[in-house]
Order: sequence, then structure tokens, then C-alpha cells
Amino acid sequence: MGETIRIIGIDPGLRRTGWGIVESLGNSLRFVASGTVRSDDKAALATRLCQLHDGLAEILHTAMPHEAAVEQTFVNKDAAATLKLGQARGIAMLVPALAGLVVAEYAPNAVKKAVIGVGHGDKKQIHMMVKVLMPKATFDTDDAADALAIAICHAHHRQSVVYRMAALAG
Amino acid sequence: MGETIRIIGIDPGLRRTGWGIVESLGNSLRFVASGTVRSDDKAALATRLCQLHDGLAEILHTAMPHEAAVEQTFVNKDAAATLKLGQARGIAMLVPALAGLVVAEYAPNAVKKAVIGVGHGDKKQIHMMVKVLMPKATFDTDDAADALAIAICHAHHRQSVVYRMAALAG
Repeated sequence: MGETIRIIGIDPGLRRTGWGIVESLGNSLRFVASGTVRSDDKAALATRLCQLHDGLAEILHTAMPHEAAVEQTFVNKDAAATLKLGQARGIAMLVPALAGLVVAEYAPNAVKKAVIGVGHGDKKQIHMMVKVLMPKATFDTDDAADALAIAICHAHHRQSVVYRMAALAG
Repeated sequence: MGETIRIIGIDPGLRRTGWGIVESLGNSLRFVASGTVRSDDKAALATRLCQLHDGLAEILHTAMPHEAAVEQTFVNKDAAATLKLGQARGIAMLVPALAGLVVAEYAPNAVKKAVIGVGHGDKKQIHMMVKVLMPKATFDTDDAADALAIAICHAHHRQSVVYRMAALAG
């Protein structure tokens, strides 16, 4: 149980993809870094997807996380917006998978439940709780804060899996 | 005008992504190859996206096309289906872009107009016209046939751009 696991959470978006890295050791969480990968909205779609790919690949190369988690986002707007999000999300899942990481997916209410204790709540509550859980956490955008929340959610869930396995073994 | 351009058309889908390669020289079109990259629908999403990535990357590495074209598909079904398609489409656009190719996008009615002469028509008409335009063409799935139609569409459009430039220069 003495193993530090470094987790990257990713909140995908074509314009801005947030990322947040935390370390999980037993019950404790430690903030490592967070940020936002942007794509140039005047560039062609394929170029923008390359920008997201290159940005995420560089972060993975530098921070060397062990596991990744991405939110299972659904958009209730038009099909064009959902298609755009899907394209960005494809890149957000591909890059860590190509690097050999397991990529977990969490529904938005699972992320909220892990961070604020209930399955509903607004962005402000999530950001406040990220700061409560990891006082040293900083984030430059809402997307980066959401990415940290996704990483925290994975830290909780993967731990409960480990506990269940320990209980079964014991 | 004596330059042969090798074009890959891609019809993206999470389960099956069709691809078709044609060569364009002046007014003539030549069939090179076509096929279908499949992902294992029992695998995790990130794994499936890797399978699409690896399959397309191998084809690009082997066939060395100069330009790529992808259909601008919209799904009128539920948001979940559109998100799935978007994820596959993100990979379909990323892989040729990472290889340095320009990736053109065409709306479905532009593809139909290029292949069957009008902006509407069913899959059977498209497949028949692909065979009329390139008698040696073979395809293992509807997706591969659609990918060839997309490549043909790009061959027509890129040529008219060249003609316009020649007219301006003349």
C-alpha cells in the first residue's frame, strides 16, 4: 500500500483541454501540476487536433503519470458541438493510451460525488473543494480545475478497488 | 500538370473506419487500394481508439499518400452516437495530420455530387459509380467504398483548384 500513484485527469475540449496531475498515497492526495492545452480556433480542424495531441504528449512525457482519467462528457447542445467535443475527447483518450496508460472514464456525477460528496453541484463548489482537498492546488482555467477534480475522482475509485482486493485477500 | 497525386479518403467510425487510396493524374483516376480498420467492440474505448490509430498509421506508412480527405459526417441519432463518431473522426483526422498531410473535409452532399453528379443518392448508386469511375476498384465493406468516394471527391476538387490557378496564371 506504500506506493505513490501519479494520476493525470483530463477535461477535453477542442478550444481548451484542461489537465491536472495529482499523487495519491494511501489516503493522502498531493497536487503536482495543472494547466490548459489550447488549440488555435483559426486553424484547420486537423491542425487543432495535432495541437491538442502535441500539448498532451509533452505533458505526459514531462510528468510521467501512471494512470489517466477522462470525464464522460455529454453535450445537450447541437450535434455539431457534440461532434467537436468527441473529436477532442478522442485525442484526450488516445494520447495516454498510446503512452501505455490505462485510461479510466467517469461520469460527471461520479466526479462531483468524489469531490463534493454529492452527485450534483456547480463548478464553484467543485473548485472550492479541490482547494480544500489540496490546499496547494492552482489552476489557470475552469478546465484545469475540472481536470484536477477528475484526477481526484480516480484516486478515490482506484483506492476503493485496492481496498476491496485487500479485503478479499485478507 | 504531370504530377501523380496519391490521395487517401477516410470514412471514420468507431467500429469500422473505411479507407481508400486513389491516384490522380490530370483527368484520370487510378485505384490503388482500399480496406477497413476495425476496433474490438469488447475492448475499452481508449484501446479501440489506439486500434484505429495503429491501423491508419500502418496504412499511411505503407501507402505513403500525399493528401488526405475525410467526410464531414453528422449523425442525427442520439448525442452518445455522435460523441462516439466524433472520437473516431478525431483519430481519422489526427493520424494523417501527424504524418504531415493536409487533411481536407467534404460534406456528404459534396461527395455525392463528385461521384454521382448530384447532391443526393443512396449508397448503392455511390458504390456503382465508384466502379464506373475506377473499374479495377475493390472494397471489402461499405465504409471502404465510401472512403474511395471521398478520395475521388478530393481528386475532383483539388484539380479544379489547380485549374483555377492555371487560368489565373495564364
